[in-house]
Amino acid sequence: MEKSHVGLIGLGVMGAHLARNLGDKRYTLSVYNRTAHKTEEFLKNYGSRYIQGFTDLDSFVESLELPRKIIVLVQAGTAVDDVIHSLEGLVSAGDIIMDFGNSHFRDTQKRCELLKKKEVHFMGCGISGGEEGALHGASIMPSGSRESWKDVSALLEAVSAKDFEGKPCATYVGENGAGHYVKMVHNGIEYAIMQLMAEVYDILRTILHFDALQVAAFFEDFNAQYNRGFLTEIAVHVLRQKDTFNDGHLIDFISDRAEQKGTGRWTVIDALERGVAVPTIMEAVNARIVSGDTQRRESLSGRYPSRGGEIGESDGGISALHDALYFGMIVSYLQGYDLMKKASADEKWNIDLSEIFRIWQGGCIIRSDFLKNMQDALKATRGGDVYMNDSIVKDLSGKSESVKKVLTAAIQCDVPSAALMSTLAHMNSVGSKRLPTHFIQGLRDFFGAHTYERTDRSGVFHAEWNR
Amino acid sequence: MEKSHVGLIGLGVMGAHLARNLGDKRYTLSVYNRTAHKTEEFLKNYGSRYIQGFTDLDSFVESLELPRKIIVLVQAGTAVDDVIHSLEGLVSAGDIIMDFGNSHFRDTQKRCELLKKKEVHFMGCGISGGEEGALHGASIMPSGSRESWKDVSALLEAVSAKDFEGKPCATYVGENGAGHYVKMVHNGIEYAIMQLMAEVYDILRTILHFDALQVAAFFEDFNAQYNRGFLTEIAVHVLRQKDTFNDGHLIDFISDRAEQKGTGRWTVIDALERGVAVPTIMEAVNARIVSGDTQRRESLSGRYPSRGGEIGESDGGISALHDALYFGMIVSYLQGYDLMKKASADEKWNIDLSEIFRIWQGGCIIRSDFLKNMQDALKATRGGDVYMNDSIVKDLSGKSESVKKVLTAAIQCDVPSAALMSTLAHMNSVGSKRLPTHFIQGLRDFFGAHTYERTDRSGVFHAEWNR
Repeated sequence: MEKSHVGLIGLGVMGAHLARNLGDKRYTLSVYNRTAHKTEEFLKNYGSRYIQGFTDLDSFVESLELPRKIIVLVQAGTAVDDVIHSLEGLVSAGDIIMDFGNSHFRDTQKRCELLKKKEVHFMGCGISGGEEGALHGASIMPSGSRESWKDVSALLEAVSAKDFEGKPCATYVGENGAGHYVKMVHNGIEYAIMQLMAEVYDILRTILHFDALQVAAFFEDFNAQYNRGFLTEIAVHVLRQKDTFNDGHLIDFISDRAEQKGTGRWTVIDALERGVAVPTIMEAVNARIVSGDTQRRESLSGRYPSRGGEIGESDGGISALHDALYFGMIVSYLQGYDLMKKASADEKWNIDLSEIFRIWQGGCIIRSDFLKNMQDALKATRGGDVYMNDSIVKDLSGKSESVKKVLTAAIQCDVPSAALMSTLAHMNSVGSKRLPTHFIQGLRDFFGAHTYERTDRSGVFHAEWNR
Repeated sequence: MEKSHVGLIGLGVMGAHLARNLGDKRYTLSVYNRTAHKTEEFLKNYGSRYIQGFTDLDSFVESLELPRKIIVLVQAGTAVDDVIHSLEGLVSAGDIIMDFGNSHFRDTQKRCELLKKKEVHFMGCGISGGEEGALHGASIMPSGSRESWKDVSALLEAVSAKDFEGKPCATYVGENGAGHYVKMVHNGIEYAIMQLMAEVYDILRTILHFDALQVAAFFEDFNAQYNRGFLTEIAVHVLRQKDTFNDGHLIDFISDRAEQKGTGRWTVIDALERGVAVPTIMEAVNARIVSGDTQRRESLSGRYPSRGGEIGESDGGISALHDALYFGMIVSYLQGYDLMKKASADEKWNIDLSEIFRIWQGGCIIRSDFLKNMQDALKATRGGDVYMNDSIVKDLSGKSESVKKVLTAAIQCDVPSAALMSTLAHMNSVGSKRLPTHFIQGLRDFFGAHTYERTDRSGVFHAEWNR
């Protein structure tokens, strides 16, 4: 039997789709799944002359050309360690194991170290695009040794989506955990954008009394006139979907208890540990947490002021809401940029951030037209602060007036809009020469002798406070 | 030589003050410091017939009555482990080591386990009140075995502050790390309250053009008419302090780069890990992070809209700002309550939360009149949800209208007020029967087949979306 180009372990939905994608691109492929019947089922449904199935790992590994290239698509966590452990005795120096799961980048760093001792390359590969992306082209964020990238670049580029210029949405991100890190930040931005969309949706429905179809039209206009993007496009479909059990639209029967898989939370925790401000992502994670406490919300409903009230169209207006959403999306991308920049420096990854905003242009969940502006601005600033880039300043300018209008209406009607508020506060703060935190420093020195610096001379001071 | 009641290791400012406090309460005391000259200096300045100094650890330990009670007040982190390590061979079964530093509760849990093997009791003791509190009476939050608490309760009560009814501000918090945990949450609340004060200060100075003395009067009125508290009291002194280098007030020359020691960040990370919403504390930590990036703020100043603008007195007004600050403080305490309640359940600490809000009434940084309301409400709810307590509902009611007025003015004038906004959004959200997160659930099911629940029937659903 001829040796396969590539092996794939884990035939869940994502794995199966990626396997089919590889087959479609005419890569010969060996597949393996711990429970054998999944492999049989897969071969029955999607078998082709490009694909060989295996029920034991030894022959699976034996079937691969050297250096072996093995894609792992199993549940993040101990399942990845189990796979690594069972492969350890079978692979040889120079082989490449690629983890395509949502692993935490710290785990990926440890696994790289572990396998380096055996001269096996471990690559952390972020992938975004869901099932669709896995099948037809995803955004792929691979990291590991540069050497291993050379061996897999053609393969990964083949199954990736294409950017706005038709180039593959796959690029070498950096050493060890860089790829999984960038994927995590991608998801943090995804949380932020979805929360902003939900707040705008809430304002439209609560204050302007829009029904689902009117909100769908709002997003359709947004895509046409402002910033075409994946999430704002699927919003239109989600809002137009009819319910199967009742008259009316499905959206009105979906429970508001929002789930989270953890990557949003990881992003915020990592940002806190590094000292980077990502308030919009924070508020998004927070909103999901609050949504989960349905029991308290039931009981408290009516005891504290909550959504309602009227406001004239003139005060908010559709274009102000369009502006506000666009402003919020830009600021979400900027927060992700801040975090990746700091992490890249901390971890010595040397990530080319303009490349990241390029490979996010196709396949991934947060893709939108604006990513091109980010890519260009990052290229132009050459490692400087992209907040200073003229085109970014211009994109944001004027829109904060709309955000202010929208928030004023939301506050008046008790529609909680913490994510939108914190995008505005973020831009107000990063643009403030003097913040009221000097008052905090005064208080801290008073009660804890924590000392303070001064604006008019250098040094560290402690006051003899009058008490 | 007679054996001492208690030993104290670490004669930094806090340690020295606590030692003097113990001496004042006529506890005989042995003291030890790693660098001997600090011990000598301490004895020279504060020596009395109650205090013996030691330069070697063996004789220090030998000098203590059984079971030995040893207070450790060294830098949190490895210094604590070093002290434990050097004591291990010297102490005997039944002895008690109390860590009064700002240790992370997870470290305290590990140290308890470690010493339990040798039948030595390790107690994590949170302490708040700064230098003043250590000397004249602090809020003390001890945890460990109940058995050890019996041996040290009189001692700790003697050096503690008194609550509003004159009872000692020290109580048994729970097993292992509970005391340090509660202290951490205390600090998180402290971050939130200070940030809210800073935002109100900013609004007064930027929009109402108050000078430092006028803001001092604002806080003086707040203490007299709303909620007398430590931070709002020292604010008056801080704002009235004259500068020593220039004409005018010191506050106007303090740098706005706010420092953090880490407990605020720990609080937010822990809350995220447990899935508890603490948005006001989050925004407070965030504001300090942003304040640190002075370089970006310098460069961006003028490029993005920032504070300024005029607004009539009638729109905001002093009483609305008083209300807003009071509202924010209450919500900060409530978020701390939520977090401690969840942690107490998770860690099986069984904390009596009404006792925590009692022992915070004296000595500690976040003490204020409102803690009595919290104590009473918690007693009345008997483990139920304190948000439902009538007196808390009444305390908050009406004030959200003032918060809305204040925020509307702040937004109009580009004064970033994310912490105040997120207190309002928090109360709006926890009181909302239906949140827009159902839209997020729809999007998630569309792109990732993450499934959703429904409002009209139970079960887990995945829609066949029209694409």
